[in-house]
Amino acid sequence: MSATVDYSSRRAAVARTISTSGHRNLLVSDLKNVRYLTGFTGSNAALLLGADGSATVVTDGRYDTQIRQQTASSPDLDILISRDLFGELDRVAGDAGYAVEPGLPVGTARALGDPAVLEGAVEKARLVKDTSELAALREAGRLADTVFTEFIAAGGIRGGITEIEAAADLEHRLRAAGADGLSFDTILASGTNAAKPHAGVSRDVIVPGLVTVDFGVWLDGYASDQTRTVCVGEPDEFSRELYGLVHRSFLAGVDAVGPGAGLFAVDKVCRDIITEAGYGEYFVHSTGHGVGLDVHEAPYAASRTDESETLVAGETLTIEPGVYLPGRTGVRIENTYIVTEDGAETVNPSTTELQVV
Amino acid sequence: MSATVDYSSRRAAVARTISTSGHRNLLVSDLKNVRYLTGFTGSNAALLLGADGSATVVTDGRYDTQIRQQTASSPDLDILISRDLFGELDRVAGDAGYAVEPGLPVGTARALGDPAVLEGAVEKARLVKDTSELAALREAGRLADTVFTEFIAAGGIRGGITEIEAAADLEHRLRAAGADGLSFDTILASGTNAAKPHAGVSRDVIVPGLVTVDFGVWLDGYASDQTRTVCVGEPDEFSRELYGLVHRSFLAGVDAVGPGAGLFAVDKVCRDIITEAGYGEYFVHSTGHGVGLDVHEAPYAASRTDESETLVAGETLTIEPGVYLPGRTGVRIENTYIVTEDGAETVNPSTTELQVV
Repeated sequence: MSATVDYSSRRAAVARTISTSGHRNLLVSDLKNVRYLTGFTGSNAALLLGADGSATVVTDGRYDTQIRQQTASSPDLDILISRDLFGELDRVAGDAGYAVEPGLPVGTARALGDPAVLEGAVEKARLVKDTSELAALREAGRLADTVFTEFIAAGGIRGGITEIEAAADLEHRLRAAGADGLSFDTILASGTNAAKPHAGVSRDVIVPGLVTVDFGVWLDGYASDQTRTVCVGEPDEFSRELYGLVHRSFLAGVDAVGPGAGLFAVDKVCRDIITEAGYGEYFVHSTGHGVGLDVHEAPYAASRTDESETLVAGETLTIEPGVYLPGRTGVRIENTYIVTEDGAETVNPSTTELQVV
Repeated sequence: MSATVDYSSRRAAVARTISTSGHRNLLVSDLKNVRYLTGFTGSNAALLLGADGSATVVTDGRYDTQIRQQTASSPDLDILISRDLFGELDRVAGDAGYAVEPGLPVGTARALGDPAVLEGAVEKARLVKDTSELAALREAGRLADTVFTEFIAAGGIRGGITEIEAAADLEHRLRAAGADGLSFDTILASGTNAAKPHAGVSRDVIVPGLVTVDFGVWLDGYASDQTRTVCVGEPDEFSRELYGLVHRSFLAGVDAVGPGAGLFAVDKVCRDIITEAGYGEYFVHSTGHGVGLDVHEAPYAASRTDESETLVAGETLTIEPGVYLPGRTGVRIENTYIVTEDGAETVNPSTTELQVV
């Protein structure tokens, strides 16, 4: 992918933000931001980006070969190899100084003499995805979606096996289909475990009733994020009603996504449907988040999102309403959407109707 | 496991460190530290621990059910549910104030009015593992080791399949054997990829020669970490010599591990053997690190470790020398050790001799 990505333009866009802020440099410590701006994927690196567009990246000796390969399309990028990432960049910046990202550990910031904090400079650039990013997001989403459909068709979720056995099957299928890894710990929650929104996977045996599966992959650095709730055996009346309620909320949210749509409004349309049915207190999380190099990133559709924040074409957003009844059961339905010029496109096209397995 | 862990004693030990530091409270933001001190495993939490032993943990509404279940053995622990974790604990601390951990994001620290930083208070307590931790580490290490042995015996690594296919097979076996997840992204590197210490897994087809596999699992919150380098087909003379060199370095490191051993000395004994053979510049990382709730944690055996730092029974350490020849090949051999009263015990007992597959 790296050959087709214009890292130089990305750095130029962030350099303009740095310049506007009045700082001379930004010390980029978030590894996803380093990757976004250089193409380097190692686990230890930092970047000093100048308001004038100059850029120095530093990593340790383990990545000497890799960083030169991955940044070959950026001849203007200075590469340093050192164990002391931040000390090295502090010396490069010299008297011009630099701001740091808010995620830098406070202990590191103190050691650097408490530089100024500049928030969101790279994240702002990352909000609207470019062509290569959209392609990667579509590929990741479809891989996960296709594999899940095959997994369900093959009887991957059934009574009598453990949650961990079912999850191992799904994860193996994802990996064998070419996923670079899992973008988060799979949730596969049966019985009362489904009542915990972030249940994980237990050694409990899957029992008849609703099973929530929240899963995702990494592909070329980009994440997928998707949830399906299926029913083992015929659902009882209550399970069917609960699923129908969350599904109505989900569809209303999807309808609301598009360029210019308010993020607070997207959350509200989903939340109102659940609240009006009397389950508002059991929808304990926000409606959606962006997906990109991070599996959770801006924008956010939440009840506390500022009402002025609106969606722009090229941004991503999950729609994932859920209802969780402690000690009983739960339902969540989630797709990831790309905001288009006239609406939204999901990267997870499989059915969101209740599937009986 | 949680029923047998004495979280109260752990909190008391850290409370003594806080008291000695002169602070009234410590705001614990590292999630592994929160887990160590409370048993709560959710992905969003913070803990205010008082020098007097009082403790308040806060998480968001998604974890309301889970946190009460997981901390049931600590009736003295106050539980709060809030989206504003740090603001909530700031209010609880009130005029008494608090120190923060060095890993807290600087942006959060600024918002809290730049509190003092107290380093290593919980990490110090985590250094020496208690009985339940040692049991979990042994179980995680042996699961991974047993599965890898079966994977090799089953022909899991062979020419003609891709690295990602082989890794998917290994990872599925790990999960099916009961792993809660992978403790880091698997490395399975063939051909010239083996020359990159942190190569990951590519779509390249496995070719005859050395293949490095670095893999690990989570089990009950604890990590395993292990590396084997195998040879696809009969090794040529150079591969055999290179493996022999790294293996001698590895065995010398293992011999050096025990209570009272210097961490600098453990690194030196491994490094000297490789340096004397003329490959010192290609051993580009440190010799070892502790393994516990984090896959990389203190202690560290490195050329920059202070010479006064010594191992204590109950600590863990990996021994993992490696040589990486850019564009050519590489070898790494790694086991995780528990320091015992009279030496060291590995949690990965399978052979470290060169296996031809």
